[in-house]
Amino acid sequence: MRPSGRAADEMRQVEMIPGYAKHAEGSCFVKFGDTHVLVTATFEQKAPPWLRDTGKGWVTAEYGMLPRSTHSRMSREAARGNQTGRTQEIQRLIGRAMRAIVDLTALGERQIRIDCDVIQADGGTRTASISGAYVALKQCCDWLYNEGFIERHPLTDTIAAVSCGIFEGQAVLDLDYDEDSAASTDANFVLTGSGGIVEIQGTAEEEAFSEEEFLRLLRLARIGCTEIGKTQKQVIG
Amino acid sequence: MRPSGRAADEMRQVEMIPGYAKHAEGSCFVKFGDTHVLVTATFEQKAPPWLRDTGKGWVTAEYGMLPRSTHSRMSREAARGNQTGRTQEIQRLIGRAMRAIVDLTALGERQIRIDCDVIQADGGTRTASISGAYVALKQCCDWLYNEGFIERHPLTDTIAAVSCGIFEGQAVLDLDYDEDSAASTDANFVLTGSGGIVEIQGTAEEEAFSEEEFLRLLRLARIGCTEIGKTQKQVIG
Amino acid sequence: MRPSGRAADEMRQVEMIPGYAKHAEGSCFVKFGDTHVLVTATFEQKAPPWLRDTGKGWVTAEYGMLPRSTHSRMSREAARGNQTGRTQEIQRLIGRAMRAIVDLTALGERQIRIDCDVIQADGGTRTASISGAYVALKQCCDWLYNEGFIERHPLTDTIAAVSCGIFEGQAVLDLDYDEDSAASTDANFVLTGSGGIVEIQGTAEEEAFSEEEFLRLLRLARIGCTEIGKTQKQVIG
Amino acid sequence: MRPSGRAADEMRQVEMIPGYAKHAEGSCFVKFGDTHVLVTATFEQKAPPWLRDTGKGWVTAEYGMLPRSTHSRMSREAARGNQTGRTQEIQRLIGRAMRAIVDLTALGERQIRIDCDVIQADGGTRTASISGAYVALKQCCDWLYNEGFIERHPLTDTIAAVSCGIFEGQAVLDLDYDEDSAASTDANFVLTGSGGIVEIQGTAEEEAFSEEEFLRLLRLARIGCTEIGKTQKQVIG
Amino acid sequence: MRPSGRAADEMRQVEMIPGYAKHAEGSCFVKFGDTHVLVTATFEQKAPPWLRDTGKGWVTAEYGMLPRSTHSRMSREAARGNQTGRTQEIQRLIGRAMRAIVDLTALGERQIRIDCDVIQADGGTRTASISGAYVALKQCCDWLYNEGFIERHPLTDTIAAVSCGIFEGQAVLDLDYDEDSAASTDANFVLTGSGGIVEIQGTAEEEAFSEEEFLRLLRLARIGCTEIGKTQKQVIG
Amino acid sequence: MRPSGRAADEMRQVEMIPGYAKHAEGSCFVKFGDTHVLVTATFEQKAPPWLRDTGKGWVTAEYGMLPRSTHSRMSREAARGNQTGRTQEIQRLIGRAMRAIVDLTALGERQIRIDCDVIQADGGTRTASISGAYVALKQCCDWLYNEGFIERHPLTDTIAAVSCGIFEGQAVLDLDYDEDSAASTDANFVLTGSGGIVEIQGTAEEEAFSEEEFLRLLRLARIGCTEIGKTQKQVIG
Repeated sequence: MRPSGRAADEMRQVEMIPGYAKHAEGSCFVKFGDTHVLVTATFEQKAPPWLRDTGKGWVTAEYGMLPRSTHSRMSREAARGNQTGRTQEIQRLIGRAMRAIVDLTALGERQIRIDCDVIQADGGTRTASISGAYVALKQCCDWLYNEGFIERHPLTDTIAAVSCGIFEGQAVLDLDYDEDSAASTDANFVLTGSGGIVEIQGTAEEEAFSEEEFLRLLRLARIGCTEIGKTQKQVIG
Repeated sequence: MRPSGRAADEMRQVEMIPGYAKHAEGSCFVKFGDTHVLVTATFEQKAPPWLRDTGKGWVTAEYGMLPRSTHSRMSREAARGNQTGRTQEIQRLIGRAMRAIVDLTALGERQIRIDCDVIQADGGTRTASISGAYVALKQCCDWLYNEGFIERHPLTDTIAAVSCGIFEGQAVLDLDYDEDSAASTDANFVLTGSGGIVEIQGTAEEEAFSEEEFLRLLRLARIGCTEIGKTQKQVIG
Repeated sequence: MRPSGRAADEMRQVEMIPGYAKHAEGSCFVKFGDTHVLVTATFEQKAPPWLRDTGKGWVTAEYGMLPRSTHSRMSREAARGNQTGRTQEIQRLIGRAMRAIVDLTALGERQIRIDCDVIQADGGTRTASISGAYVALKQCCDWLYNEGFIERHPLTDTIAAVSCGIFEGQAVLDLDYDEDSAASTDANFVLTGSGGIVEIQGTAEEEAFSEEEFLRLLRLARIGCTEIGKTQKQVIG
Repeated sequence: MRPSGRAADEMRQVEMIPGYAKHAEGSCFVKFGDTHVLVTATFEQKAPPWLRDTGKGWVTAEYGMLPRSTHSRMSREAARGNQTGRTQEIQRLIGRAMRAIVDLTALGERQIRIDCDVIQADGGTRTASISGAYVALKQCCDWLYNEGFIERHPLTDTIAAVSCGIFEGQAVLDLDYDEDSAASTDANFVLTGSGGIVEIQGTAEEEAFSEEEFLRLLRLARIGCTEIGKTQKQVIG
Repeated sequence: MRPSGRAADEMRQVEMIPGYAKHAEGSCFVKFGDTHVLVTATFEQKAPPWLRDTGKGWVTAEYGMLPRSTHSRMSREAARGNQTGRTQEIQRLIGRAMRAIVDLTALGERQIRIDCDVIQADGGTRTASISGAYVALKQCCDWLYNEGFIERHPLTDTIAAVSCGIFEGQAVLDLDYDEDSAASTDANFVLTGSGGIVEIQGTAEEEAFSEEEFLRLLRLARIGCTEIGKTQKQVIG
Repeated sequence: MRPSGRAADEMRQVEMIPGYAKHAEGSCFVKFGDTHVLVTATFEQKAPPWLRDTGKGWVTAEYGMLPRSTHSRMSREAARGNQTGRTQEIQRLIGRAMRAIVDLTALGERQIRIDCDVIQADGGTRTASISGAYVALKQCCDWLYNEGFIERHPLTDTIAAVSCGIFEGQAVLDLDYDEDSAASTDANFVLTGSGGIVEIQGTAEEEAFSEEEFLRLLRLARIGCTEIGKTQKQVIG
């Protein structure tokens, strides 16, 4: 029995508001239940220096949490003067995930910068970020194409992410905070709309897990990402 | 004629949503037109070390802007590794303003930490922050009182803030971004509900201003703060 | 009765030694009583990057205190690895004040960098800094003009600053440390020689102040700045 | 055909020198072919503050690369003033892996600190680090037990790690630098001696991968970790 | 022929003003010609943590240069966020020199903190700092003794420092900036009043030097330090 | 009697392995007894900016210690976010020493970067670093010459370094850790093969030393550097 009363393969309520941020080229306010993330996509005319004369562009990401997005307040990273290892790990993951569905040559020597800021946290902030980032990125690329900056649309697929884990001996989909902090195994999956795996991260929190358990989590992740994909399609077409 | 079509003494639409943040002891999502700030108040059982054995508590504030809250993206302070001088100036101002209406002895050796995070910026983020911070602080103090942490309610007054400026030769209330970036004089006022002045900051952007002009701005500020105070009262009682 | 025995509208002894620093293009050792600040003005052939191709120059300022300029030693900012919020606030103020009287177009794409270093502190370091910075800046601009770097003299006015406050219920001019740490209201004024207001900063330390009180402080500030202006004129012509 | 001429399921030469560091409580110089890592384990009498009064200890890890351990020199992290996101990600992984086989209660309120420093890099530095860290940790725990610091030996299993990837369409074991930089999918596996999975990290570098491909990599990882385990057993018993 | 016209064994004009800083327990404004340094000594009731329960105290030093103390402006260390290697090297040297003449047991578990701030630089700032630091330290120790903080006077000797070098083939005493930047060998000597050597630092700037040359420099240093010692004695007794 | 049983003028066993690092243009693993340092020399096509259009190149050095190279673990400088004063002092010394025997004009506008990383420490890490750096630098310069990057070989001499000190009243050569931590005077000497002195650093740890004592240390240093020079010649020709 899950604390939220959900079935093992049941997602939290997923909601996405594209165009939430007035100034950004693309944006999405994404909710996985009580986890709320504001994602923006910013277009920059200049690619990073190491791509000079390659004809290729780049997509990168930054991630942050508002200090009181969490149960007890976290210290503000800007005030402490650096980003934690966790923050860096997550923003590297988001960037890799986005680049997996972008034709960087179609983008040309330009950069799209994804910002994921957690407004409220209740587990699964990195997977909500990736799922919302797709919408912001799509909106930004549409804008680039419509404005004539690029000739080909650079997106090659859709992408979504979800966490799964083993909670009280049972494989469950889309962990909330209560489950996340008690799960014996915790895994994040990033999957494309066409069924490919882009990223798998599985971690044994207490005791090692087996191949069978891991495959069960992957199966749940497919269910979750399909559902997220439907919401993405609804809001961004 | 103001770009927004407002009258010289007309505020933007002010909206306040108390209790917006699920986890915080007090919170307020405040909008001054397109300027949106999420304010949270966090209660901490421990006062800063320099207050040990004084019987007094503290109220402090931190301020930040989401990177793409602005027209063009600002670099993320956490990634750069420090807070700009502007950020520090603003968070010091917010903290002083809140302390002006708190009986620190009634609070006891505890601390309330105000976080103001700008979700969207269109001018006046510091004054919206202060105005919203009052609501979050009030909510937090009510909670402290109701939970029995304190015996006396520590708030001694209400407080609100607004910016005024001289735009195209005319004194106007509550500058939005278009006005702010073109104003010849820019001033921020923090006023208590009982009419006292807590903070005045007036800056000549291009040419020096006169005492008369300054008094005209102060008069507008009184109008604005009265209106903000009405909204505060509506939402927090 | 003021601790120093001064009348309410009486400045401390103001002294200015222009050309104190051997290497700088302009400099002034300024004393407001026991508050001593060394100000230098450094000319740089290059304006900041954001002014490229605008034909305009820039004036900026940095501020610091020697660790034992104060009653009890402050930690050295260079050793701690950053400047405090107070330091940044003050150096931003000094820079704005100087730019208010400089025709940046007459300066061309060059920069003048003002350094204010507090050798001894006894209240009012920021206003002494601004008042002395005018002398250093003037000396530097004279040098630029005489050396033929610029064709028009870029200064458009003179400028001075002084602090005032309400000490034991009385409005007094030019607070020293004893008064500053006990004042209920503390205000800094930056005024031009022609009578305009460039910057006003008024802060209630304990209880809010009224418009009348504030105007009384402004009146004192006019007296103080006039007197400072006389000293400036004496030493720099 | 692999650049090194190895079979698809063939590890590089694995060599481990326990007790390499004169001063450390445990140490191992580990070689996976031309990848050389010096691992030390340092015993500290004090656990981190958050474990006070829990009766539990901690194992943590730090990771670094000598600047010229790589083909072209990397900037020294100590000189730049921070650790990269990659470094932090790796050291977090090493720490989690070690904790997965340690009974933290048996350790008591003490800490073991693992340092992994890459002397020479040729792909797979994080998996060589983990595999060598086991030996250093075992040596350190043996010492603790023999010296009478602890009453029960805290290790609950053995642990090893290896990378696998899809190189030119073929699943191969233990990627060296040439393969790593050209692989379309890259995965790291951390497995216990008893066959459990502690950590899985799979990343599509260019195109998404399938479940079948992933399972093929996992099978190779089992072969590799078994072989590493034999070397561990040989050198540390 | 030296640029300044001085004889080879002639010091610049040495001047020392003890008690220059109003707030410090000890201070000295020291001039070696155009090199001006303000030294303060601050007494702290607490020794560094590593001396707890040893009954011993500590003397430490910090060093800084005002940005425009030099010919061309140096960037402000506080603004850059760290101290250069040169700064750290110098402040470590000053601290060691002072501790060489202090009986740390007589000081008890307390600390004296020496701050050397270069107001104007013309070569030899570190040796002027050490020579002036002796005066500030002496004044501080006298105060400690007179106030009854300590029972025995902790100073065991006097100390002075001077630089010598080989300039245009000739060994000369007390290098000024013009000589310093052209000298082929540059050496700093810290000598006690009783003739002992506390610190020697000799560096070949262009070509290696011989033992004979080095001894010639040492002989000049003895002349210089004797002269500095006379001034110290004059001003502090 | 020395703790190691060595004679007063007896070096520890000196061993040098040139070409230890696979990727570097020059390298040397140097051992002075239990002090082990890995030195690499990296060639860079670009000189530092301040040498632009001078036709001259540069040699610079960086130094680090593995955290557990020492008896008790030191904190990792990369994790702390800065290099200690000691580290900076040592790397500046190594750089100066190398430049003393390099014709920077023969190098052209290029840079050689020396990295000295202490794998195990037992006293004398800076002198072992310099002695080994000569070998790495020589190997790098040979490579540059053989590859045709430069037309003249830039090395003008050989160089070696050793520490000496006064231990229990006796002048001894090549201090190990036990001696170093108990020596009353500690001195480092950097000498060229042709007998010149490049750097002398002598420090009184407890009581001042005399000229005679210092000359005795210098004489020992000559013996030590001659011996080190023989090993250098053996391994690099």
